[in-house]
Amino acid sequence: MWRPDRASDRPLYQQIATNIEQRISLGEMPPGSPLPSERKLAQQLGVNRSTVMQAYEMLRASGLIESLTGSGTRVCRDREGSAPRQTPNWSRYVESGTLQPNLPLMRRIREGLQSGVPFINFAGGELAPDLSPNDAIADIMTSHPFREPLGYGNPQGYVPLRVALASFLLEQRGIAATDESILVTSGSQQSLYLLTQCLLNPGDAIAIENPSYAYSLAMFHSAGIRLFGLPVDDEGVHPDGIRSLHKQHRVRMVLLNPNYQNPTGTVMSAERRIEVLACCEELGIPIVEDDPFSLTAFGEQPPPPLKSLDRNGTVLYIGSLSKIAASGLRIGWMVAPHTVIRRLADARQQMDFGLSIFPQWIAARLLDSTSFLPHIEQLRIALRDRRDVMASALRRMLPGEISFELPQGGLNLWCRIHGEVNDYALLENGIRNGVVFVPGSVYGAEHGYVRLSYARPPMEEIEMGIDKFAQALYKSLRT
Amino acid sequence: MWRPDRASDRPLYQQIATNIEQRISLGEMPPGSPLPSERKLAQQLGVNRSTVMQAYEMLRASGLIESLTGSGTRVCRDREGSAPRQTPNWSRYVESGTLQPNLPLMRRIREGLQSGVPFINFAGGELAPDLSPNDAIADIMTSHPFREPLGYGNPQGYVPLRVALASFLLEQRGIAATDESILVTSGSQQSLYLLTQCLLNPGDAIAIENPSYAYSLAMFHSAGIRLFGLPVDDEGVHPDGIRSLHKQHRVRMVLLNPNYQNPTGTVMSAERRIEVLACCEELGIPIVEDDPFSLTAFGEQPPPPLKSLDRNGTVLYIGSLSKIAASGLRIGWMVAPHTVIRRLADARQQMDFGLSIFPQWIAARLLDSTSFLPHIEQLRIALRDRRDVMASALRRMLPGEISFELPQGGLNLWCRIHGEVNDYALLENGIRNGVVFVPGSVYGAEHGYVRLSYARPPMEEIEMGIDKFAQALYKSLRT
Repeated sequence: MWRPDRASDRPLYQQIATNIEQRISLGEMPPGSPLPSERKLAQQLGVNRSTVMQAYEMLRASGLIESLTGSGTRVCRDREGSAPRQTPNWSRYVESGTLQPNLPLMRRIREGLQSGVPFINFAGGELAPDLSPNDAIADIMTSHPFREPLGYGNPQGYVPLRVALASFLLEQRGIAATDESILVTSGSQQSLYLLTQCLLNPGDAIAIENPSYAYSLAMFHSAGIRLFGLPVDDEGVHPDGIRSLHKQHRVRMVLLNPNYQNPTGTVMSAERRIEVLACCEELGIPIVEDDPFSLTAFGEQPPPPLKSLDRNGTVLYIGSLSKIAASGLRIGWMVAPHTVIRRLADARQQMDFGLSIFPQWIAARLLDSTSFLPHIEQLRIALRDRRDVMASALRRMLPGEISFELPQGGLNLWCRIHGEVNDYALLENGIRNGVVFVPGSVYGAEHGYVRLSYARPPMEEIEMGIDKFAQALYKSLRT
Repeated sequence: MWRPDRASDRPLYQQIATNIEQRISLGEMPPGSPLPSERKLAQQLGVNRSTVMQAYEMLRASGLIESLTGSGTRVCRDREGSAPRQTPNWSRYVESGTLQPNLPLMRRIREGLQSGVPFINFAGGELAPDLSPNDAIADIMTSHPFREPLGYGNPQGYVPLRVALASFLLEQRGIAATDESILVTSGSQQSLYLLTQCLLNPGDAIAIENPSYAYSLAMFHSAGIRLFGLPVDDEGVHPDGIRSLHKQHRVRMVLLNPNYQNPTGTVMSAERRIEVLACCEELGIPIVEDDPFSLTAFGEQPPPPLKSLDRNGTVLYIGSLSKIAASGLRIGWMVAPHTVIRRLADARQQMDFGLSIFPQWIAARLLDSTSFLPHIEQLRIALRDRRDVMASALRRMLPGEISFELPQGGLNLWCRIHGEVNDYALLENGIRNGVVFVPGSVYGAEHGYVRLSYARPPMEEIEMGIDKFAQALYKSLRT
């Protein structure tokens, strides 16, 4: 992003005004475009608000922008010296479309993170830079000469990666699958998007755990899917819950995250897996089993995945490298009956013409490399240590205000707040204090829960972050 | 894909039957799944049809599959020895969904190419392996140590790539754009998909050239967009056409491919560009300018892009590396007003959580490398040579049957067939003869046109391919 040059002789406000003028003249900010508020632009550029005020004043004087009471500052529609032309009404265009904007709380978090101010980030569901197998990946790129064809790839994904995934799934998760029943995706988000766009119709009902990360996905709203929450106990969801939802709403799919569930961290019991699978087989409802965290197990491995018990093709299994290697690779997978795989692979051509060969080539070599399992071992230990640092800081700084179960895997700690608190106020107080996290209502919970991810910030900032969070919480509690 | 082992002692039909049995027991082919026809499976596996018949007979005898008159062979729903469970009705699920299957002719071409039989491919709109900068890319991967963060990237795309694109666009296309007005995409297909899903509503009308590759994109049908064709003359589309379509249908967007248009190869004249831009500015209709081919110019460069003339942010400019470097990279871009870029970047998070860092990192280095422009020079010469070989073969083998204009850039030659011919019959005759191409009706033309791409097959096969095409054409002409 452009920033003014502090070493220059030209005053900062003039540099800012010239930059905006350029963007207007290039058509990057067409007539009618909104300008950021003075406060926000000052924050982004790291200057005083008065500097931005001066710049805007200069642009107003030259007739390029106008400030309207109540609706902020905009690029003028009628400019002096220019022919009275029209321009597309972009603000109306961007309010069109089927893909809905993301949830306000999620956008607020991202806006905070992108503001340029440093934050301790307990909101991001991803690994810190030092937890990824950086050296292994750099090594793959330099030591294996790249000689793959550079044309459009196989719509179902690079065959050597599918072959590597078939052994990985068998060895690590007990899932027997041939490469023809595997679809490589750019991650779980694309897997879920494809399932939604290819197998469900607007108005269809699906059942999810309550709370569930699925509530945070604007994608389901965009597709007109009705989400119904299943009650969850210590062992996970109960088949009776599925039966009764199905009776009421003719559920067309059940989406489950049985291992270290996002956000609660719970693990579905082995008995419940068998019962839930039998129930869905009987009702003829597909289960989407999302399993991003299982390899992070801090102690014992979780019970076998539903997919490993599935003999009738009831389970669509979703996994990815995002939470166990690197989210920036953008590599995920789905295991499903051939008819489903073929339908999804064909439809994806409309969205993006398939995946890049490069991350697929790297992922195939990473899965096959001797350093991958040692990396997973290290990751487990590092995540457990982070969890412990966060948990003890929480216990020390907020002894009576919150409670939580210690997660046995995954990236997240799910806290219940004992006092009464409003999610929006809590997040705003956090942002003001330099810490972000995800309020529980994003996941369908009542107000008074938060998801704190211990995987993202540098280890040495976790304690300070919890201190900031504790201050924000004290400020937000209604007494 | 699995194939029977010819070196084994076990008869082929037994190996085939065991493989299918395994897939059924793994749930990859759940009860009710269709099996391929005997003819098709025999072709795929490279065995005699009688071998497949024997395998199916064996599976029928063991009660695993059933053949129903008129509806082919399926996996049995009720299997002996298994509890009378249900399973999701997958054939109904795969018929659901918003994303429509691809066009029948396009699926037929892909089916042909994937059948395992060798084809001369005049259908693929991509570069032959030897036309891509393979060495430059392999060199980038080994000589630049990869040290980038591996987390979720910037939703708008990797910043160094956007900076590299800004200079590339300025130097090569005369487009002044800052990195903030650039969105990196996985190619033109994703750019168009995002525009459609974020800026248009179902039922909206858009204007396209007639014929246009846009007619081949099932994506527009999936989104419920109504496509209206604009008449095209030697100079491209005429503003009057846009005005009259707009009057009739309230067109919300105009999609143009002004340089070496796909499929016709025409170049819009400089005057027409100015007139069309002025017309759209006046009407307030955005222009989507798709410009994948301009750098392939065989002789003179095409006139400046509409985007370089646009001062009001009317033009959304789309480009990619697919036709000038490598389609397997999956790197494209869009230049648009900030409000549009931000809306699309936010919405893409729902689809795929952004792009992989690896192709972006490679593309940034490729654009900045000293070998990129020499590569483009070589590509131009190689494509022109291929065009000449194809054109002279066509003139020699089909002297009176077809006519075409020699394209001055791009990958495609657009032929008009003089006699009466049915597109479906012509394609089937081609497939039977070992050659594929795209019948013109896919692009909205009447029957009797074909698009022949000279970029994809090995240079030395072009002549043989035209021979096969000529035979298919003679067989298809109604005399």
